[in-house]
Amino acid sequence: MSYYSGPSPNYSVDRAHSHSSSHSQHRHHSHSSRHNSSLSYGPPAGADPQLWQWFTTVDTDRSGSLSVNELQSALVNGNWSKFDLDTVKMLMNIFDTDRSGTIGFSEFAGLWKYIADWQRVFKHFDRDQSGSIEGRELAEALQSFGYNLSPPLLTMLEHKYASGIASSYGPPPGITFDRFVRACVTVKTLTEAFQRVDTDQDGWVQLSYEEFMKITLSAP
Amino acid sequence: MSYYSGPSPNYSVDRAHSHSSSHSQHRHHSHSSRHNSSLSYGPPAGADPQLWQWFTTVDTDRSGSLSVNELQSALVNGNWSKFDLDTVKMLMNIFDTDRSGTIGFSEFAGLWKYIADWQRVFKHFDRDQSGSIEGRELAEALQSFGYNLSPPLLTMLEHKYASGIASSYGPPPGITFDRFVRACVTVKTLTEAFQRVDTDQDGWVQLSYEEFMKITLSAP
Ligand SMILES: [Mg+2]
Ligand SMILES: [Mg+2]
Ligand SMILES: [Mg+2]
Ligand SMILES: [Mg+2]
Repeated sequence: MSYYSGPSPNYSVDRAHSHSSSHSQHRHHSHSSRHNSSLSYGPPAGADPQLWQWFTTVDTDRSGSLSVNELQSALVNGNWSKFDLDTVKMLMNIFDTDRSGTIGFSEFAGLWKYIADWQRVFKHFDRDQSGSIEGRELAEALQSFGYNLSPPLLTMLEHKYASGIASSYGPPPGITFDRFVRACVTVKTLTEAFQRVDTDQDGWVQLSYEEFMKITLSAP
Repeated sequence: MSYYSGPSPNYSVDRAHSHSSSHSQHRHHSHSSRHNSSLSYGPPAGADPQLWQWFTTVDTDRSGSLSVNELQSALVNGNWSKFDLDTVKMLMNIFDTDRSGTIGFSEFAGLWKYIADWQRVFKHFDRDQSGSIEGRELAEALQSFGYNLSPPLLTMLEHKYASGIASSYGPPPGITFDRFVRACVTVKTLTEAFQRVDTDQDGWVQLSYEEFMKITLSAP
């Protein structure tokens, strides 16, 4: 199991929350070091130099924080395709803890670690090292996170998150990194929303149209 | 009401289905004209010259059919941003009626008309001609299609399909053309799936985890 033996099965999908909360603390720290001052553009005290270097590379307009467009231009998959806008928005919604609409340097540290963690997970489950996650690899990943999805559901996920569409005589193309992360977060979000409504845990829920739509629209 | 007075409220969201079916007929026609022959690369008999011209421009590898990547490279919003992969996949899933995984010329005719129809709808509801659909414009569009969504649901849709994220002191950016189409098709897909389960039409459904996940993953 190499590097993946340490964390618990739910490890990666859950990182977002622990990061978000640890961020609020970082934020106060960075504010006191005034790195957003218009007179200076430098790293906050104690910043990781490599991380600062990468942050300033992404911050092309040198505003001191990263916009959706700056992040989308900087984030690429193994095959050099850009992250989908919906993945970038998902990341920003997790890590923009001060709701500024942009990612500051302290927020960026969490986002960067989150992506690095997911990259390890992706590499681990990309058994054939094809650079993408195919159906069986996706099933194994979700299983290891504790989601026992039926074969029809796994097939739907495989098609929905594939980086293209299938022809009738073969499987769909594989799932790129950013879409793999979004698929896993979506399964987690929907499953947890279902479980919150299923208070007697019998696997059935009763939903009004309003609740049904709210839950489905809450997934990234 | 100008050019939008003709069609019924459900007009645009429903076009896909009528097109899909009219396509199967076109397909036989185009097969008999052998436009996929490796020896010749020309329009089928009776083809619209302008449509053929556009098709061959998109078909950059001159394979005689359009891949996901070729379509994504060719389809742009009013602000020149490319269509999302998920929108291109949605279009291909509607119009690739022979399940070849690509869009042939006869399939392309339907796709092209579908986009043109939606462009008219988009222009109609972009009241301030900003080139994007904002919250109030989205509400009006969905209302005209027959979907009476609550203000909280409309706000969720506005944020989910916006072309960026909001800061805490303002609304999200507007919705670009391709994401507007996907938002409308998603509302239609989810609402119809709900109504199929809600056989007594009381606005409530009972769903197993399996059904719940299937329905949510069926939306584009
Ligand atoms: Mg921020
Ligand atoms: Mg693989
Ligand atoms: Mg086809
Ligand atoms: Mg507008």
